[in-house]
Amino acid sequence: MAKNFSTLRNKMSAQAQERATQLTQQHIQEMPLHELRQARGLSQQVLAEILNVQQPAIAKMERRTDMYISTLRSHIEAMGGTLEITAKFDDGDVKISNFSHI
Amino acid sequence: MAKNFSTLRNKMSAQAQERATQLTQQHIQEMPLHELRQARGLSQQVLAEILNVQQPAIAKMERRTDMYISTLRSHIEAMGGTLEITAKFDDGDVKISNFSHI
Repeated sequence: MAKNFSTLRNKMSAQAQERATQLTQQHIQEMPLHELRQARGLSQQVLAEILNVQQPAIAKMERRTDMYISTLRSHIEAMGGTLEITAKFDDGDVKISNFSHI
Repeated sequence: MAKNFSTLRNKMSAQAQERATQLTQQHIQEMPLHELRQARGLSQQVLAEILNVQQPAIAKMERRTDMYISTLRSHIEAMGGTLEITAKFDDGDVKISNFSHI
């Protein structure tokens, strides 16, 4: 007889259940800037006001596939976040600190 | 009598010890680009040859505090890594996908 997910999960130790929950929470979403803005509940107009630019500048910025790191940082900080730049290698990840304090 | 670290660690369950080890491994190093290059065992000259530029261009690049994301990506890929850009928020992290496929 097939076992359902709850039955299997209940057989896991408390520690294993906790670990599985943490792994799920660690799964990071990936999205473009305009989706991130929408996910934060912000309009282009509101973001434009925070950054002291016109709304079309936000629209244009969200279509770009390359930009200065400082520009991206300002954009993300205007949404209430912080920018993190990571170099990923087979044997580990390294945060790049050159751009931490512009 | 004071307990040493090994005594305390041996009292942890196997699961807790495993979890602590994983947390340590998750701790990400942070360093500037020139330290990352040295950590990868690369000279400026070698990196310059990979990127088909002159060595002083690498030296100059490593001193910059701002640059185009595409420039940084090329630099990191020349070291054998991949670039990841993350916006961190109190309620979770989001990978920014605009720049994934330049």
